[in-house]
Amino acid sequence: MPAFPRFTALAESLPATVPFVGPETQERARGEAFRARLGANESGFGPAPSVIEAITREAALCWRYGDPENHDLRQALAAHLGLAPDCVVVGEGIDGLLGLTARLIAGPDTPVVTSLGAYPTFNFHVAGFGGRLVTVPYRDDHEDLEALLEAVRQHDAPLVYLSNPDNPMGTWHKADKIVAFAKSLPETTMLVLDEAYGETAPPEAIPAIDALSDMPNVLRYRTFSKAYGLAGQRMGYVFGVAETVSRFHRVRNHFGVNRLGQAAALAALQDRDWLTHVVEEVAKSRDRIAGIGRANGLVPIPSATNFVTMDCGSDVNRAKSILEGLGARGVFIRMPGVAPLNRCIRVSAAPDAEISVFEQVLPEVLAGVPATIG
Amino acid sequence: MPAFPRFTALAESLPATVPFVGPETQERARGEAFRARLGANESGFGPAPSVIEAITREAALCWRYGDPENHDLRQALAAHLGLAPDCVVVGEGIDGLLGLTARLIAGPDTPVVTSLGAYPTFNFHVAGFGGRLVTVPYRDDHEDLEALLEAVRQHDAPLVYLSNPDNPMGTWHKADKIVAFAKSLPETTMLVLDEAYGETAPPEAIPAIDALSDMPNVLRYRTFSKAYGLAGQRMGYVFGVAETVSRFHRVRNHFGVNRLGQAAALAALQDRDWLTHVVEEVAKSRDRIAGIGRANGLVPIPSATNFVTMDCGSDVNRAKSILEGLGARGVFIRMPGVAPLNRCIRVSAAPDAEISVFEQVLPEVLAGVPATIG
Repeated sequence: MPAFPRFTALAESLPATVPFVGPETQERARGEAFRARLGANESGFGPAPSVIEAITREAALCWRYGDPENHDLRQALAAHLGLAPDCVVVGEGIDGLLGLTARLIAGPDTPVVTSLGAYPTFNFHVAGFGGRLVTVPYRDDHEDLEALLEAVRQHDAPLVYLSNPDNPMGTWHKADKIVAFAKSLPETTMLVLDEAYGETAPPEAIPAIDALSDMPNVLRYRTFSKAYGLAGQRMGYVFGVAETVSRFHRVRNHFGVNRLGQAAALAALQDRDWLTHVVEEVAKSRDRIAGIGRANGLVPIPSATNFVTMDCGSDVNRAKSILEGLGARGVFIRMPGVAPLNRCIRVSAAPDAEISVFEQVLPEVLAGVPATIG
Repeated sequence: MPAFPRFTALAESLPATVPFVGPETQERARGEAFRARLGANESGFGPAPSVIEAITREAALCWRYGDPENHDLRQALAAHLGLAPDCVVVGEGIDGLLGLTARLIAGPDTPVVTSLGAYPTFNFHVAGFGGRLVTVPYRDDHEDLEALLEAVRQHDAPLVYLSNPDNPMGTWHKADKIVAFAKSLPETTMLVLDEAYGETAPPEAIPAIDALSDMPNVLRYRTFSKAYGLAGQRMGYVFGVAETVSRFHRVRNHFGVNRLGQAAALAALQDRDWLTHVVEEVAKSRDRIAGIGRANGLVPIPSATNFVTMDCGSDVNRAKSILEGLGARGVFIRMPGVAPLNRCIRVSAAPDAEISVFEQVLPEVLAGVPATIG
């Protein structure tokens, strides 16, 4: 039986690899559930009780399509940001919105600049539309703004990705640096500013809304997946100049956002007390994870996110052995994918019970992993 | 402030129009909610109580990403269909999967064949990737299989869309006709067989799974949005030859399916009694809608779907006046978008209370609409 011969040349050229393997896949392979789920930067602190109530209330209406305009949520987000509703588009998580962004700007062989080891899903989407990734090494575990700018100029790239705070390293730049970077870009380069972890960052890391809101070449991405605790609901949003943002409507899947997600996100946005509570819990958990790491000879990197990345003091082999050892003992974590970041492991903030499992298991794992291997 | 100048030429060429305006948009415009929601072919009969329970149970875990493999649901669907799990891919509704299909096969100027007046969202996605739509008129309110085949051959099209049962007309072809059509297509043409309304169709309308399951150029699309009553959860699936289906993994948003949707769909698939109940209710509701139409001088077209399309006896102006009159009185319906189908209105099956509103309002509306206008 011959295969279908007329997929596009681009589709045929794409690898079958995926950006991330889910923890469930690993659980099926090991035949039991993880005892601690610390790998996907989800929020084990959960969404607010008010959000669960909103979901439960809306469940009886899940036979109705969600509002394709995401009107109520967009209004609330706009009010929250101090922008006009037309400056905001809601999508199926930041991942979905990054896919649309790549589609709108990156065609075959379009140069797209990002940091070497930054968010793989962005790279997946760029490659999926034929874009050519130009990568810039991290500098001292931070995204290197000067080098990113230089690469943009050198390649005349129409698209550059920056996460602040950064994933997978947890580091951040101050707002004034980010604003200066944005303003130094050519007007012909779109900045994808991924602020997925903005809520857990120190305030001075996040540019004021109006610092960038008049720039047609800046898009800022935020999510309900992290601090708001709604990863499973797939609710992200992007904001920027209305005319720029309007392009998403030309290509998005208009009915793609699920109805309970809309209700959940709206309730989450309104429950500021819960967000404050979670941000406090995340900060405490980061401190605890860092302390556990230090007590075991790892070097935690200061983090503005809901995870802590820790230097394992050697190369990929040691970090990988630790990750695998933790996994075998029921602790799901992840690690950066490329050198030199992959000397590290990445552990998500979580409720104390899960961190205690990590605390208990880590020394057992390290006992079996030599200080330097490779 | 200049606009961002480097969206792709394709993106810049796309119109800002959307395939469907949601009822919420109309409700906001009229300043009050519809009394009867009969326009989007949702299932007012709702999902099964067991499904609501599954959603409520899973809600506390919505801080976790859904399994990107959709493993449990895919296993259950595969068992249900009698296929290997690798033959099934789950996505964000049929709409999302149609978008991926267009992306995989249609590039700039690729000819894509569909019926004139068939599903606008498919057309939206094809146009969104630069494809060139080749449309074939309906014949006697049915999609015209011979003419579709002829257009495929004439244009050497790699992609052809067919919904069976059909939306927006509600008509259907028997399974043997569909199978013969599929087998008559060149091996270089992918058949998109949209079976969104398959559950409410007479059994003889739906090809056996194994009648098409060895054809690399056939993809069948089904959904939990219609008979299963989960439109708001955005759960669809596509199945076919494993190698064909595998292409979706190269481009899909792997974490794009929401977790409560996964739980809801799995529960819905297992509750066969509820599906049987809903299918019976839909059949009764279709009969009632048709009866109301006939009593008011409209001509209902026999339907295999969860809606009834009714000929208003004149042209677009009469149908549109009826639609607008119903809308002004709180009854949301839709109508086909192009001639000659747009002589009709389309009314979704729904619980009796809503149909009673339609029954009450329709004569009032018709009293104000002359038999022939235009």
